[in-house]
Amino acid sequence: MRMVDLIEKKRDGKELLKEEIEFIVQGYTKGDIPDYQMSAWTMAVFFQGMSEEERANLTMAMVESGDQIDLSKIEGVKVDKHSTGGVGDTTTLVLGPLVASVGVPVAKMSGRGLGHTGGTIDKLESVEGFHVEIDNNEFIDLVNKNKIAVIGQSGNLTPADKKLYALRDVTATVNSIPLIASSIMSKKIAAGADAIVLDVKTGSGAFMKTLEDSRELAKAMVRIGNNVGRKTMAVISDMSQPLGFAIGNALEVKEAIDTLKGEGPEDLTELCLTLGSHMVYLANKANTLEEARKFLEEAIENGRALDTMKTFLESQGGDPSVVDDPSKLPQAKYTYELEAREDGFISDMVADEIGTAAMLLGAGRATKDSQIDLAVGLVLNKKIGDEVKRGESIVTIYSNFEQVEEVKDKLYKNIKITPERAEAQRLIYEEITE
Amino acid sequence: MRMVDLIEKKRDGKELLKEEIEFIVQGYTKGDIPDYQMSAWTMAVFFQGMSEEERANLTMAMVESGDQIDLSKIEGVKVDKHSTGGVGDTTTLVLGPLVASVGVPVAKMSGRGLGHTGGTIDKLESVEGFHVEIDNNEFIDLVNKNKIAVIGQSGNLTPADKKLYALRDVTATVNSIPLIASSIMSKKIAAGADAIVLDVKTGSGAFMKTLEDSRELAKAMVRIGNNVGRKTMAVISDMSQPLGFAIGNALEVKEAIDTLKGEGPEDLTELCLTLGSHMVYLANKANTLEEARKFLEEAIENGRALDTMKTFLESQGGDPSVVDDPSKLPQAKYTYELEAREDGFISDMVADEIGTAAMLLGAGRATKDSQIDLAVGLVLNKKIGDEVKRGESIVTIYSNFEQVEEVKDKLYKNIKITPERAEAQRLIYEEITE
Repeated sequence: MRMVDLIEKKRDGKELLKEEIEFIVQGYTKGDIPDYQMSAWTMAVFFQGMSEEERANLTMAMVESGDQIDLSKIEGVKVDKHSTGGVGDTTTLVLGPLVASVGVPVAKMSGRGLGHTGGTIDKLESVEGFHVEIDNNEFIDLVNKNKIAVIGQSGNLTPADKKLYALRDVTATVNSIPLIASSIMSKKIAAGADAIVLDVKTGSGAFMKTLEDSRELAKAMVRIGNNVGRKTMAVISDMSQPLGFAIGNALEVKEAIDTLKGEGPEDLTELCLTLGSHMVYLANKANTLEEARKFLEEAIENGRALDTMKTFLESQGGDPSVVDDPSKLPQAKYTYELEAREDGFISDMVADEIGTAAMLLGAGRATKDSQIDLAVGLVLNKKIGDEVKRGESIVTIYSNFEQVEEVKDKLYKNIKITPERAEAQRLIYEEITE
Repeated sequence: MRMVDLIEKKRDGKELLKEEIEFIVQGYTKGDIPDYQMSAWTMAVFFQGMSEEERANLTMAMVESGDQIDLSKIEGVKVDKHSTGGVGDTTTLVLGPLVASVGVPVAKMSGRGLGHTGGTIDKLESVEGFHVEIDNNEFIDLVNKNKIAVIGQSGNLTPADKKLYALRDVTATVNSIPLIASSIMSKKIAAGADAIVLDVKTGSGAFMKTLEDSRELAKAMVRIGNNVGRKTMAVISDMSQPLGFAIGNALEVKEAIDTLKGEGPEDLTELCLTLGSHMVYLANKANTLEEARKFLEEAIENGRALDTMKTFLESQGGDPSVVDDPSKLPQAKYTYELEAREDGFISDMVADEIGTAAMLLGAGRATKDSQIDLAVGLVLNKKIGDEVKRGESIVTIYSNFEQVEEVKDKLYKNIKITPERAEAQRLIYEEITE
């Protein structure tokens, strides 16, 4: 087999066989296939797409390119949740304890990463003492005991995907649905998921800006999952404005605790109940989605969700008393209010720009080596559709810098107020199961 | 400027500016732009094409990537002829002396190359003593004196094209009209041509198998030439069967001499008169194409074309007496006849396969290091449309090997005889001037 022939085959719109895709992925991972052939192939995929079978084969070839996490010693169906990424997305912090509290095993491998705020691990490290440096056996024991544990990324998972992603990034081939879908799915499968619930964001703050593109990506991932024997479904949710109120690490931990108490933002709560219901249902812990949702609502009401959060934090060295007293979380030195300059209604809150404002405060990493400030960030006091009076606070800014003019400017520029009431943003657009 | 953005721009079907194309070509030549970005860009070009302006800019950027031959000290309009390559294509050997004999300066830089037979220089070296190791001043003096000289390729011409072609070859991006056209044209322009006559072959033995593709390539090249200030025209000629009768180095020199005497194959003679008329016309040596053709016919009739051949060979150390006595050219030890196995009419002679048969005899190089046998090759005694009787010779095989079964098998397989008369092959399909 010669790579040049496989590039030509894809270029001409023909379907690649399983062994051909394996040849490409293995050869590229080992370095037998050079970057310049891989990038030409990737550009051909950009134009010609991939069939469902090709996508499934690419995903599994990437899974098999490296280590795979063995979660078989954990009882029950391991359901993983994945979000395509947005601003102020606190769902993971809420969903973990929430679904664990009704018996769904949550064995989460998580990372730090770049972005407007830190990753799940960064956020959890706002809790004094919490750490993810546990070994695999301890991790599995903890999940079996508490139904929830988080471990840092280890092992050589999907090296093909890592290498390919880095190449796509510099060759203008990131934006290809089959490549995005197989990249995401390969990572979830290599991390040991039996079933997968996807939260595909749509809107200005999302990777996919339009509902159409988001739907295509969601369908692509759901089909890959189901074609390779992992029950998979996707929810398409709004990311035209930030989710919930908090954008920042400790601030989002506090918001997660509020939500587990039943006192969280309406949109975040609703999205967690929706995603959580699907997780519970896929884990066979409920017979219907309605029943699953009822279980979750009960767990919030009777405090079991909150208790699970405490046990979880304590088991990994964290101080559980923050759950009852969030003031023990890192606090910023200064707070400032972004005051409305006119009366009216919020009509627009450009999610990614607001996320960038949080990053300017130090809430996220611009580069791999940036230091994160866990205390800082933003809390939205208003969202799209809300009425606002001149001088009223739209956003509270939590900062360790005295000067926040740049942040304020960015926020003013990206939050619009109109005289007429803007329609509130729809939260959930679609649920895709096949 | 970032290469990734220029890949994206082309990927999305947008037109690149002159300075953007220069950035790409210069950056790639210098090694600042890596192969993996160039190949992704090239694949994007494959799918999105290039505008006329982009093609002209790419061509000139490649011309400017290396040395350019300065022919300004040669009097008159330097018209170069380029063939896209075929089997048994003796036109260059005929056209050089032919147009030179009516006053068109022929300053030919030529190479050896891979293929069914050697390149023009290999062929000319069949003449004892002939050599192309002359310096630039001598070359220019010879052209001014005799109107014709051939020099070996020297200098660093179009390094961008060389590097890009090698990359395209292994990334399935050879077959792109804008890239093929700019590659060919950049080489001609860097070699100093003021005007260019293109012989675009079409049919089974040609790079472009269909008339439609050949026309597209011809138009692309003609437009590039005219857009960058070089008068350019193209003839689309048949290459479904070999041109003329001879395929082999010394055999083609003999055929060229025959043609210059007015005793050559009909198709070769006609193509040379057609291409030659355009060269004479573009060199301003005739007022009309008809007049140009008349000059050339006269030069054949009155022996001036043949005399020019003699002077040319002698000026570069060759023995001019071969022109009167071609038996002084290298002769093969053995000759064999490929006898018809049935009565009928020749209906097919697959050009490239017949060329490969000549290569098997040693007439051409399979790899850069192969040795060429100048004496060997094939002479067709019949062509498409000709009647043939059982036992009559279709092809004469000139070999230095005693065994030629493999060659005969290949020829039998690729020459078809039918009971009904097949229509003779059309020679010239179109002439494209804009």
